Amino acid sequence: MEYKPIEQSFSVAYAYKLYFTKGVFNKENTLFRDILAVYKPNSRVKLLFVVDGGVQRHHPDLLDTIASYCLAHGRTLHLTESIVVPGGEGVKNDERSTRLVLEGINQQGICRHSFVVVIGGGAVIDMAGYAAAIAHRGVKLIRIPTTVLSQNDAAVGVKNGINIFGKKNFIGTFAPPYAIINDLQFLQSLEQRDWVAGIAEAIKVALIKDASFFEYICKHTRQLRERGMDAMKYTIYRCAEMHMQHIARGGDPFESGSSRPLDFGHWAAHKLEHMTDYTLRHGEAVAKGIALDMTYALLMGLISQDVWKRTITLLEQLGLDLHIPVKSERETGKLLDGIREFREHLGGELTITLITDIGKKHDVHEIDTEVMKEAIRTLNSRSKLNVA
Amino acid sequence: MEYKPIEQSFSVAYAYKLYFTKGVFNKENTLFRDILAVYKPNSRVKLLFVVDGGVQRHHPDLLDTIASYCLAHGRTLHLTESIVVPGGEGVKNDERSTRLVLEGINQQGICRHSFVVVIGGGAVIDMAGYAAAIAHRGVKLIRIPTTVLSQNDAAVGVKNGINIFGKKNFIGTFAPPYAIINDLQFLQSLEQRDWVAGIAEAIKVALIKDASFFEYICKHTRQLRERGMDAMKYTIYRCAEMHMQHIARGGDPFESGSSRPLDFGHWAAHKLEHMTDYTLRHGEAVAKGIALDMTYALLMGLISQDVWKRTITLLEQLGLDLHIPVKSERETGKLLDGIREFREHLGGELTITLITDIGKKHDVHEIDTEVMKEAIRTLNSRSKLNVA
Repeated sequence: MEYKPIEQSFSVAYAYKLYFTKGVFNKENTLFRDILAVYKPNSRVKLLFVVDGGVQRHHPDLLDTIASYCLAHGRTLHLTESIVVPGGEGVKNDERSTRLVLEGINQQGICRHSFVVVIGGGAVIDMAGYAAAIAHRGVKLIRIPTTVLSQNDAAVGVKNGINIFGKKNFIGTFAPPYAIINDLQFLQSLEQRDWVAGIAEAIKVALIKDASFFEYICKHTRQLRERGMDAMKYTIYRCAEMHMQHIARGGDPFESGSSRPLDFGHWAAHKLEHMTDYTLRHGEAVAKGIALDMTYALLMGLISQDVWKRTITLLEQLGLDLHIPVKSERETGKLLDGIREFREHLGGELTITLITDIGKKHDVHEIDTEVMKEAIRTLNSRSKLNVA
Repeated sequence: MEYKPIEQSFSVAYAYKLYFTKGVFNKENTLFRDILAVYKPNSRVKLLFVVDGGVQRHHPDLLDTIASYCLAHGRTLHLTESIVVPGGEGVKNDERSTRLVLEGINQQGICRHSFVVVIGGGAVIDMAGYAAAIAHRGVKLIRIPTTVLSQNDAAVGVKNGINIFGKKNFIGTFAPPYAIINDLQFLQSLEQRDWVAGIAEAIKVALIKDASFFEYICKHTRQLRERGMDAMKYTIYRCAEMHMQHIARGGDPFESGSSRPLDFGHWAAHKLEHMTDYTLRHGEAVAKGIALDMTYALLMGLISQDVWKRTITLLEQLGLDLHIPVKSERETGKLLDGIREFREHLGGELTITLITDIGKKHDVHEIDTEVMKEAIRTLNSRSKLNVA
């Protein structure tokens, strides 16, 4: 007797929310408490904090402030421990950081209905989110991103991950957070390079999705560069909004297909970060990646000289350096390996996102290596002229 | 100006299929090839095999057979490498095994549209499935379970995981496989204890869900014990079917609530496995766990003496040992810690599944420790009488 195959299908529903606030741990600010009170109306919620060491340096009172806040709202919040980890991409390269968070989850008895709350830049958020996602097959996560880049991009998505084998995000999962809280106060203490670098992701999303947002950024270039909070607030809001809409409405939130339409400029960015031992910020690398792929698009006749020039000028006026740091044929070859690695990470057919005009995304499935090399030369000789 | 929160929600659809066959890598058997040809009609699919060392010992030609099969169906299948890992629960305790599979995925360029194919018992399937789930945020997985337990339970679900901090499945993810193939031929080489142990999961599911299935097992006790393949085939089919239906129709496939209604007898089973350094098979531990919780249910007046006796007799007639291996008050205390750990792993309120009759599940949210200790004593004195 033969048995028929047994087939099952089901759907899993996900929902998450991004909040904007200022001074999230001021006792009078009840947003954080309210989010958790809604989750568990009749009992205290266990919280394990993971804090970016860089953020703690700029805000030496942060741990005390958190402790006071949790005490003041002690009928809802139960702070167990705050773990401080190094900031920056290095935290994703060092498996001990992930282990530290897992140990905290274990020792403090954080369960699927307790929360890891991570405060920091994109790298710390990625790492702690990964640890939270694999512990007990997923404990709840609240992200409090502290950089422009993480507030408008890294922390509003559904991914987490760490690096091994020298490959960025080689391991990770898709796991939406319970909530994200963008606290603009953290942005004030950012170094200028971090302030500016995060704008690259906003330009990316404007270039592939929204010409009027691109116009907005062009019109507010000076305010953005000179740390005008209103311009930055709108830029972050609009970028985060488009990012989240793309995830929810794009039809493929967990990327089971081959395309990642939000990854314009990213094949080179990922590789450049690795080749420079992560001394480049992700946003800085994305700016270079966008400039490179825009130059490739120009050489391939996809975009006009005018579109190319406006984009390059905008990036440079913000203070972003567009030089591609390859010093030899060998290094150029290594950078171009990034195209293959990008395909492998996605799986399936190669898909590189380019544009045909501001706001007009255009996917290609082949890259002409010789033209890409020419694009590197064109971009670098131009940058040199600008510097001179 | 204040910005409103941005809220997004979406659903992710999952589907997977369980096939039954005999001799999956006989060249004439096209099932495996056909499954992959449907996935990628026009190109070869890259495969990385992970093979349980115990299976390989019993089937020394297995790697050659796989290689020949992939060669014979070379227009569809592209075998990259076969990694052999130790079998048994130890593989989930040793992080090097996970690392080995991740290295294979990296070195062979296995992407989200390539497959890890794992052949083995539940532990190897859990470990390799975990590695596949976190690599590139999820490469495709085909499971070929080789034990009764994994064919009717572990391999047909949506979980994977490994052990750390001495806790079973402390880390893992929810990730349905692309397909599962139950090959009855692998069962023939099982040791008797593995053949019998796997039946415990079928008895578990019958006790909480299906009285007529319980009758079937009672009626076929001798055939099952004496390795009658037809009785075993039906037992596996029905158990797997109920397990998969529970996942798809239970409304909570990724367990965001607090109940895991299929976990009857499992709080003690998990803890006993750990306390015996995994010398107990999972199914053997489940048999003890069922017997213990049935005895507790009897002492609490939830079930009749008759229901208790029929279950205990069935388990013993199959050859399952029901003695609870605790030698002191301290060990008893350690075992009872398993109740708290079970709650922590699930999160939220404690939920222990018991029954009120054959086929009638009954969840409780509190366990009376003194009665549970009495249940251990009752069960153990009875077992000793039987042995004498």
